[in-house]
Amino acid sequence: MTKFLNRPEDAVTESLRGFARAHADLVHLEDQPRFVRRKTLTPGKVALISGGGSGHDPMHAGFVGRGMLDAAVPGEVFSSPSTEQILAAAEAVGSDAGLLCIIKNYAGDLMNFEMAMELYDGPNASMVVQDDVGAAGGSATVGRRGVAGTVVVEKIVGAFAEQGGDLEGCRLLAESVAAATRSMGVALGGCRVPTSEKPNLELPLGEMEIGVGIHGEPGRRRGPITSADAIVEELMETLLADMQPKAATPLLLFINGLGGTPPMEQYILYDAAARILDAKGLTVARSIVAPLCSSLEMPGASITLTALDDQMLALWDDPVHTPGLRWGV
Amino acid sequence: MTKFLNRPEDAVTESLRGFARAHADLVHLEDQPRFVRRKTLTPGKVALISGGGSGHDPMHAGFVGRGMLDAAVPGEVFSSPSTEQILAAAEAVGSDAGLLCIIKNYAGDLMNFEMAMELYDGPNASMVVQDDVGAAGGSATVGRRGVAGTVVVEKIVGAFAEQGGDLEGCRLLAESVAAATRSMGVALGGCRVPTSEKPNLELPLGEMEIGVGIHGEPGRRRGPITSADAIVEELMETLLADMQPKAATPLLLFINGLGGTPPMEQYILYDAAARILDAKGLTVARSIVAPLCSSLEMPGASITLTALDDQMLALWDDPVHTPGLRWGV
Repeated sequence: MTKFLNRPEDAVTESLRGFARAHADLVHLEDQPRFVRRKTLTPGKVALISGGGSGHDPMHAGFVGRGMLDAAVPGEVFSSPSTEQILAAAEAVGSDAGLLCIIKNYAGDLMNFEMAMELYDGPNASMVVQDDVGAAGGSATVGRRGVAGTVVVEKIVGAFAEQGGDLEGCRLLAESVAAATRSMGVALGGCRVPTSEKPNLELPLGEMEIGVGIHGEPGRRRGPITSADAIVEELMETLLADMQPKAATPLLLFINGLGGTPPMEQYILYDAAARILDAKGLTVARSIVAPLCSSLEMPGASITLTALDDQMLALWDDPVHTPGLRWGV
Repeated sequence: MTKFLNRPEDAVTESLRGFARAHADLVHLEDQPRFVRRKTLTPGKVALISGGGSGHDPMHAGFVGRGMLDAAVPGEVFSSPSTEQILAAAEAVGSDAGLLCIIKNYAGDLMNFEMAMELYDGPNASMVVQDDVGAAGGSATVGRRGVAGTVVVEKIVGAFAEQGGDLEGCRLLAESVAAATRSMGVALGGCRVPTSEKPNLELPLGEMEIGVGIHGEPGRRRGPITSADAIVEELMETLLADMQPKAATPLLLFINGLGGTPPMEQYILYDAAARILDAKGLTVARSIVAPLCSSLEMPGASITLTALDDQMLALWDDPVHTPGLRWGV
């Protein structure tokens, strides 16, 4: 037990209570059923909601605020939120302008968001993020998982909704951003859900899981930890082969810490990734290095690339004011 | 080896290179000798510099920018920067208005900053942060160490310098903020310097070090890990006994992750600390929950309290734009 906990089964409740109090200027926590919403809604705006298992902070509750989400629906750690929670969040923030659900591609999330939208009485649309190219054969089965690229979708579409984008416009933009985004992760160790005594990923000391999922799901290869440069090269080759960006395309390069990897190493990975893009004549237009889609205390990181167009670039730069991401305001 | 590294001895060099590139809009990295400076200096402003061993990101290089530092001088991991580095940084950013050195209380930092200021040809002053109440008998020997409270000093004095505060005013304010600030940490495990095979703190699984320093220095007590509430109570009792804040005093409550503790647990600690302050009738005026003064990948956290006066409160809220802390701009 190397965690700060009271009763392990209260971890999400206590953490959200602390989160809501620390950020009371921005968010409000509802508890029966549980969701996090903006303190002040913008009338007439398309509402954006997302959600999923907890343990990926600041995703998603940390992205509730001006320029991103209107509500986030946290499940228990690594468990989907219930239909009841999602419906309550939708009813609290949905408007006549419509409600867009941004869903990561996991069976439980998909099912519960879909059921909630069947019960929700108002204009709505849903889209699914599946940016993870890490798992071997993933697309042959249930498709790719949604991981850190979800943050990019939420930021860019959040800015568009704030500017008055309509529901269909928000949905189409979200699909475009998702289609322009690829992510791949690597773990150097596991993480442990508070209520479990067993780690989610059993990785022998000195081994790494290339292509790991954000819940410790297996990737495409396990082997001895190699140099940072070699690891980044393997991730970048896979990402670039899948996405095939043009030389002039402005890329967003996003190094995402998975929780247990300190900034020093995240910047070493960034340096390696930027050098690879330079060598290929590709264009790094925007950079972000931060643990925005984490996996509890997992030592590891992921790389996300988004091929931005002019609209996405401008929307990325637009002001955002949330507990987890803030600029321009 | 569960770190992302190429040659371990290149870790600081590669990380700073990635950092400087990712934040090229804000900072510039000099390499012979090494320091990080603002890309654009404000003429006529008192310059603020700080520095110390690397491994505490975002402290200090991540606090270079508008409203905080003008330069940061990073040593190797957990090692003081050289006199030569500090002097070069001072000469690069020092102005006729003066230069203030914000120094954490460690022998190497003190010695090298002092020697650099003997060689520096311009108006300057220095102050020493010693906010750590964690070590048993620390004040009887070399005094208290400087830890996360340094971030509060840099933020508040940085805003004051930006508004045109003079050198003596900046120094006096820095002393006031430092005198109003107390910190105490706890580790649930160790961390390891990249070039070493041995952890900095050897902590048996399931034990914690109460009062730990940011390099894994021993605190005041080692024992089995208890509940989050019990741990926070122990830290808060020590902090409050030492600082004796009045009920109406607006407190800054700062929960600082040491690196390996995820946001979920940092917010559990925040929740516990806020409940204790409530029960004592004390006033939480501002809150921040983030790993701002980390210890590589150490699982652990510290609590910092600052008794703000009206001036400090306004300066805390003032806009800041650095890689590691940003609001209002």
